[in-house]
Amino acid sequence: MTISRRGLIHRIGRVGGVAAAYRTMAAMGLLAVPAAYAGPPVLAPGGGRRVVILGAGIAGMVAARELGKAGYRCTILEARGRAGGRNWSVRGGDTVEEVGGSQAVGWDVAPHLYFNPGPGRIPAHHQGLLSYCRELGVAVEVMSNDNRSAWLHDDKGFAGRPQRARRVIADQRGYVAELAAKAVDQASMDGPVTEADRGRLRAMLRSFGALDRDMTYKGSERGGYSVVPGVEAGVVSAPLDLRALLAADFWQYKTQFSEGWQMAPTMMQPVGGMGRIGEAFGRSLEGVITYHAELTALRRVGEGARVEWRDTRTGAVSAVEAERVICTIPLPVLRGIAADFSAETKAAMAAVEYVPAGKIAFQAERRFWELDEQIYGGISWTTRDITQIWYPSAGLQEAKGILVGAYIWSDKEGEAFAGKSPGQRAVDALADGAAVHAGYGASLGRAVSVAWPNIPFSRGGWAEWSREARRSHYKVLQAGDGPFLFAGEHMSYVTGWQEGAVLSAHAAVAKVGG
Amino acid sequence: MTISRRGLIHRIGRVGGVAAAYRTMAAMGLLAVPAAYAGPPVLAPGGGRRVVILGAGIAGMVAARELGKAGYRCTILEARGRAGGRNWSVRGGDTVEEVGGSQAVGWDVAPHLYFNPGPGRIPAHHQGLLSYCRELGVAVEVMSNDNRSAWLHDDKGFAGRPQRARRVIADQRGYVAELAAKAVDQASMDGPVTEADRGRLRAMLRSFGALDRDMTYKGSERGGYSVVPGVEAGVVSAPLDLRALLAADFWQYKTQFSEGWQMAPTMMQPVGGMGRIGEAFGRSLEGVITYHAELTALRRVGEGARVEWRDTRTGAVSAVEAERVICTIPLPVLRGIAADFSAETKAAMAAVEYVPAGKIAFQAERRFWELDEQIYGGISWTTRDITQIWYPSAGLQEAKGILVGAYIWSDKEGEAFAGKSPGQRAVDALADGAAVHAGYGASLGRAVSVAWPNIPFSRGGWAEWSREARRSHYKVLQAGDGPFLFAGEHMSYVTGWQEGAVLSAHAAVAKVGG
Repeated sequence: MTISRRGLIHRIGRVGGVAAAYRTMAAMGLLAVPAAYAGPPVLAPGGGRRVVILGAGIAGMVAARELGKAGYRCTILEARGRAGGRNWSVRGGDTVEEVGGSQAVGWDVAPHLYFNPGPGRIPAHHQGLLSYCRELGVAVEVMSNDNRSAWLHDDKGFAGRPQRARRVIADQRGYVAELAAKAVDQASMDGPVTEADRGRLRAMLRSFGALDRDMTYKGSERGGYSVVPGVEAGVVSAPLDLRALLAADFWQYKTQFSEGWQMAPTMMQPVGGMGRIGEAFGRSLEGVITYHAELTALRRVGEGARVEWRDTRTGAVSAVEAERVICTIPLPVLRGIAADFSAETKAAMAAVEYVPAGKIAFQAERRFWELDEQIYGGISWTTRDITQIWYPSAGLQEAKGILVGAYIWSDKEGEAFAGKSPGQRAVDALADGAAVHAGYGASLGRAVSVAWPNIPFSRGGWAEWSREARRSHYKVLQAGDGPFLFAGEHMSYVTGWQEGAVLSAHAAVAKVGG
Repeated sequence: MTISRRGLIHRIGRVGGVAAAYRTMAAMGLLAVPAAYAGPPVLAPGGGRRVVILGAGIAGMVAARELGKAGYRCTILEARGRAGGRNWSVRGGDTVEEVGGSQAVGWDVAPHLYFNPGPGRIPAHHQGLLSYCRELGVAVEVMSNDNRSAWLHDDKGFAGRPQRARRVIADQRGYVAELAAKAVDQASMDGPVTEADRGRLRAMLRSFGALDRDMTYKGSERGGYSVVPGVEAGVVSAPLDLRALLAADFWQYKTQFSEGWQMAPTMMQPVGGMGRIGEAFGRSLEGVITYHAELTALRRVGEGARVEWRDTRTGAVSAVEAERVICTIPLPVLRGIAADFSAETKAAMAAVEYVPAGKIAFQAERRFWELDEQIYGGISWTTRDITQIWYPSAGLQEAKGILVGAYIWSDKEGEAFAGKSPGQRAVDALADGAAVHAGYGASLGRAVSVAWPNIPFSRGGWAEWSREARRSHYKVLQAGDGPFLFAGEHMSYVTGWQEGAVLSAHAAVAKVGG
């Protein structure tokens, strides 16, 4: 058996498509890692064949766009009056509809005064999404995700006094390096490091942790100053007590969060709000998307499908038939629609949990976090229910801003948030935030909150596959069910990110026209 | 001796001024740390008294602005035809003048196509500078400083193959945590950690380093994937070999650089280029600044001073007298001007070294670093002379960009750079950059370089005080010399940053009118 690498890749490409060839090349080490984005699949000409797509979120619109390029005739049925789905920016004059009530958004109108109830970040390696931003002319800008000036707050740590992330992170790092240096000194040290490497290892640890000459951590400029240097020399802050650091919950995730694949810099956002992407997709698919079309039934008809829907404004009922239907509806909604799915498909759909995420945003009359605390963008963390406070990376140093006063994704807290009235959410979020910022509520008002379990046609934040559900059910949905193919962030290993929606749509259209 | 805290602060304020009171409050723990910016000093009314300011850089213009607010009549003498000094953005159509030649900037003209030969970053705590951005309406935006997708390149490490910062940083961190975990296990471990803390310490280390259950580092998603997760699961990159990591120079500073006080996020930049600040200051001081005024002599006349200068266009000689002169001229230039300074002042001026910094920028016809390598902003590092490659944080995903192909600040390399012709600098920088990026030069052209030792009226990058020079000479310059007061980044402990210029100017005006 001899086969050249090129030959192998060519064969895989013919059988499995571009994506498979690409993955093979990556696995063979023939691509730089993390590798260049492979691009959407190359499709056979559609010749005007009809494909019905359910949902004008990112997945549905990517599918329509790619199939459209290849000559398919697509129809997207969208229950809302707008494109984007969870890709959404709320602005002054908008209305937020939840099951059980609506909120009028009474904010001032300005380009930087927006709130992303859904996704708010684009990592650099999400090249699927970023390539559509390029195609659609949606400008992106750097956003601050990890901000070392932001606060870490634990009600039970440091007597409940918030600590600057800068200081906690620097001191944690210093103590870890000091500990590691002790191990280097142990004669019994095993592992791959030999005596000859120890000098270099010690020097590395000293640099890593900003250790003193004696290899102990005594604080460093990384942690900040108690007297900031100016025309006189500064005084470095004393290190936080190690035992106090260990007692607070900061290290359990928060001090590491920005090291992660999805979270590390460079992080980006569309200029003017995440919703700019959905809006641009929507404009590019004018005539393809039918809005206000609430699905009522998904039927099999011969080899194809019939999709039934009603107009949410008029109540008029319609139906459309097609050989293939790409279904991007979030599973909590899809589960409630009468559908001729197999028992296996229904079991798979039932096996996926959704995160009960929620956010609240306030209009701030004064950007106190910038003016008083030197916080520009990024996130503060607290053990309170609000979990996070997000400072806008847009409109830095403007007079006003939209502050995200809670971002909740834990089950218990998320469900509690969804169970409250918008007014109660605001009261509670202001109380929680006051533990992080003195005088927090003084310049905040006009709250707008979104509890995703209550949002019609979404009914959840994003999919969470248990290991067991992945093993037993993912392949079932991936294979599709007769004429029905499934896409959306839930149909990926990048759940909770728009990139998952993009890549799942590529996989679906490859099945239609690959 | 009883004295209330308030009384003490009040007294210190009367004797030492606002800044002293502020520092006292900080030292007493009465201010949040890092504390809110104290603002410019409160000045006694100037009553139309004349102050001459030498240099329309940031320090000189801050001084003029604050003195002007208090009713002083200021004149700034500036040798160049523009305001800003080292605060400078170069754009298409500009000319870069160096001693010995000039370069026409042949770049396309667009808001994001600029190059900052001098400062390019504003940390969040530089509230002096940021407050002037607010006052002057200069918009700022987040910039990427630490980009985990950028490259680390060492000709002698990893066979000269550049490594993603993400992977190096994650693996270094993992190995350090693994080592630290060994120390925790040593019965003989001393220090503040007791047996009771060990469980918590182990858990912290596991989270810190993304260690495996057995407390060893086996790689993690933080370092990235060899197969990126999409609709199929990803494959995490194997960790780099510890010995190879130790052999490369990355850990000596590069993997730590963004932990520092001045370098940690959030980092910012003015929209449209750093020069927007100098330009806005210049507009706000129209009529106050006399351009093309090259100093020829600084004389003492009674208690006051006479400043002599010639117009660089006409050669016409002029002089102006004033009670006080604030001199912000960089010392390499000031040393060459005939001046009635004391021997002590001259010795102090002679004691300060300047960094021979240099940069080169290219117009890129294609943003290959974004399109092919997912690098959005930030910095790659190499052991080659170019030291750094800066990717623009502005104009993300635009067609073209200005790439900074070298940022050099070491003595030997900086002097060599200054000694080359612009053409040779470009050739050499392209060769060095090709070690970091395959096909580097293909879309780069129209080089523009700035070697600060060659730039008239600057003649160096920024001041570097040795410990000895600080001890012996700093206070001399700080005290001023008769009618002459000194300001500029060199008159601070924040040298090399515009914030040092701002704070030094505040200190100088406090001496004039405090």
